[in-house]
Amino acid sequence: MALDPVFEPITRRAPELPASLKLPHIAPTADTLLEHSLKRRLAPGGLPEHALGRMEALVLQLARIQNGSPLAFDLLAFDSPQLVVFAADHGIADEGMSELAQSMTCEHVLQLLLGAAPVSALAQMHGFDLTVVDAGVASHITLPEDARHKAPLLLRKIGYGTRNLMLGPAMSQAQAVSALHAGMDVVRHLPGNVIALGDVGVANGVSASLLLSRLCGVPLADACGRDDFQGPGIDDSVHQQRIEKLSAAASRHRKALGPLDALAALGGFEIAMMTGAMLQAASERRVVLVDGYVAGAAALVARSLSPNVADYLVFGHRSADSGHRLLLIHLQAQPLLDMGLRLGQGTGALLAWPLLLAAQGLLER
Amino acid sequence: MALDPVFEPITRRAPELPASLKLPHIAPTADTLLEHSLKRRLAPGGLPEHALGRMEALVLQLARIQNGSPLAFDLLAFDSPQLVVFAADHGIADEGMSELAQSMTCEHVLQLLLGAAPVSALAQMHGFDLTVVDAGVASHITLPEDARHKAPLLLRKIGYGTRNLMLGPAMSQAQAVSALHAGMDVVRHLPGNVIALGDVGVANGVSASLLLSRLCGVPLADACGRDDFQGPGIDDSVHQQRIEKLSAAASRHRKALGPLDALAALGGFEIAMMTGAMLQAASERRVVLVDGYVAGAAALVARSLSPNVADYLVFGHRSADSGHRLLLIHLQAQPLLDMGLRLGQGTGALLAWPLLLAAQGLLER
Repeated sequence: MALDPVFEPITRRAPELPASLKLPHIAPTADTLLEHSLKRRLAPGGLPEHALGRMEALVLQLARIQNGSPLAFDLLAFDSPQLVVFAADHGIADEGMSELAQSMTCEHVLQLLLGAAPVSALAQMHGFDLTVVDAGVASHITLPEDARHKAPLLLRKIGYGTRNLMLGPAMSQAQAVSALHAGMDVVRHLPGNVIALGDVGVANGVSASLLLSRLCGVPLADACGRDDFQGPGIDDSVHQQRIEKLSAAASRHRKALGPLDALAALGGFEIAMMTGAMLQAASERRVVLVDGYVAGAAALVARSLSPNVADYLVFGHRSADSGHRLLLIHLQAQPLLDMGLRLGQGTGALLAWPLLLAAQGLLER
Repeated sequence: MALDPVFEPITRRAPELPASLKLPHIAPTADTLLEHSLKRRLAPGGLPEHALGRMEALVLQLARIQNGSPLAFDLLAFDSPQLVVFAADHGIADEGMSELAQSMTCEHVLQLLLGAAPVSALAQMHGFDLTVVDAGVASHITLPEDARHKAPLLLRKIGYGTRNLMLGPAMSQAQAVSALHAGMDVVRHLPGNVIALGDVGVANGVSASLLLSRLCGVPLADACGRDDFQGPGIDDSVHQQRIEKLSAAASRHRKALGPLDALAALGGFEIAMMTGAMLQAASERRVVLVDGYVAGAAALVARSLSPNVADYLVFGHRSADSGHRLLLIHLQAQPLLDMGLRLGQGTGALLAWPLLLAAQGLLER
């Protein structure tokens, strides 16, 4: 079926990428024989077809990912799961795009480092090692003197926040490439075969919406829902004003069509690093557990750069952002949970993690 | 707003119940003060409002349930969680209402007893004690001689399957009352403060649809979706034939309007026992984790008998049955998961259990 031309994903165009960008090779995972044998193992005699519904699809995806070893696939095995939260600030916050002050980015990072964030409890519960990456927070992050780190902080600052994208590209192409490489590097040095990715960054939902709009042809007004500016309290005129500002920004960067150009013009440092992290993790055949809207935008960029990455992405949840729903549709992804979170930080990814353990258990039976 | 008279829930009429039926007292759980203080604990400074989305609602519900102790509420505590699977046969299976032969009920019970069902793996993973109750399987259940029970079987057989409800009420009112009491009794003898309820019974989705239609005024054709007869393979004429048969049955039992009468005429032994189990568990302030469509139908009957029970019900998931969606809407319930299962046996309830543990963890932080 021919797609409505308005909605034809621009991402299908072969992107022209600079020689400085080194993308890892990602193998596709399709394996019809494996799927066939697993379906029989999952539904032994007497169960209705597809009795396990979407759990079946999850088992199959995980098995395809882990089928790359020299041995024949038998059981799912998860090893040293990692949660990496990338934090950065966004110049666009200056335009009053969030109910939260920009300083809250730093505040949220501190809470993660001190083990006081909601996701900290989940990471501890599920045995995830948490690593926080300063991808470009606008200030220098220092813990109170007498405080103890509960999670390590990696300093990978590309800049002190992106530029206000109303005034110019959020970052240069060189910065975008550096951020992608940094994200790959972070993953390369982490152990395990599961990696969950989350984000912190005041106003980063704006970048997610702009990327969704640009890379998938979704109208900006749809990508930025009425409730999406972190706080359901804004009135119609404020909302309309914001949409108009963002339309002006999108139009200023109308030539940034390819994934790397769009990422540089409209993205954020943490989005770029998450993109790199996803690509690297997939190239190492790790399971990539994707958190909310902003991590989803990184997935969109990653898929545009290297389509096979999609095989490795497990989408933890659908957040309260209306753009997130459209983004998942464009990625043809069904998230595991739909809990209406508006939080980021990997919270939704870790809430969904027990379903992957259940997939493992269902296969072991 | 006045409701369309067709859709006015018949359950709102005060049911006339026989003196022989002894329903336990169930206290409502509402506590505005508690909710207020918990919301503050869950979202400390700097998080957007309702950042935890539906996890917040889950924490609040669980806290309200556990707030009944003499001490002031502090943290959620789960103790000895129980999974009880009620099994029974349905005379309506004679009418070709399921792709599965009636003998599969017994087969599924054996798999549960031997620890070979999908839910067995989940129960073991999450430390649930599994109890299987023979509420009315059509045959005598015997394990192979050399097999070892992995789960106890309670014999509470009300009959060898219900009557074919095309020909008369599925059970007598006295049987329905006995089954309700048996369900209460089963729960009374189990430890812990969490109980998950699942079902086994070929063609029991038909009873669920008839109860939904009768107690909520949903048209039968909507309550019985095209895919709902356990197997997506049937063609339109077969489907239409089934709907016509069920309409005839519903019309035969048109006087069975109250919840007990509807349960007797259209229900099943396992549905009646689950109803009793829910009422008893709620009266003891246990958390009741409800599985799929059939357990949902029991919840509908339970709420019609004793509205306060709703405060204690946590709906684990939405199954593939299209009637289940309507049932949950009528119960004003948002299920935790939506995984397209078509399985019963408590599988969806146990898949959702980690979200209750996450709720506990988020509050402890």
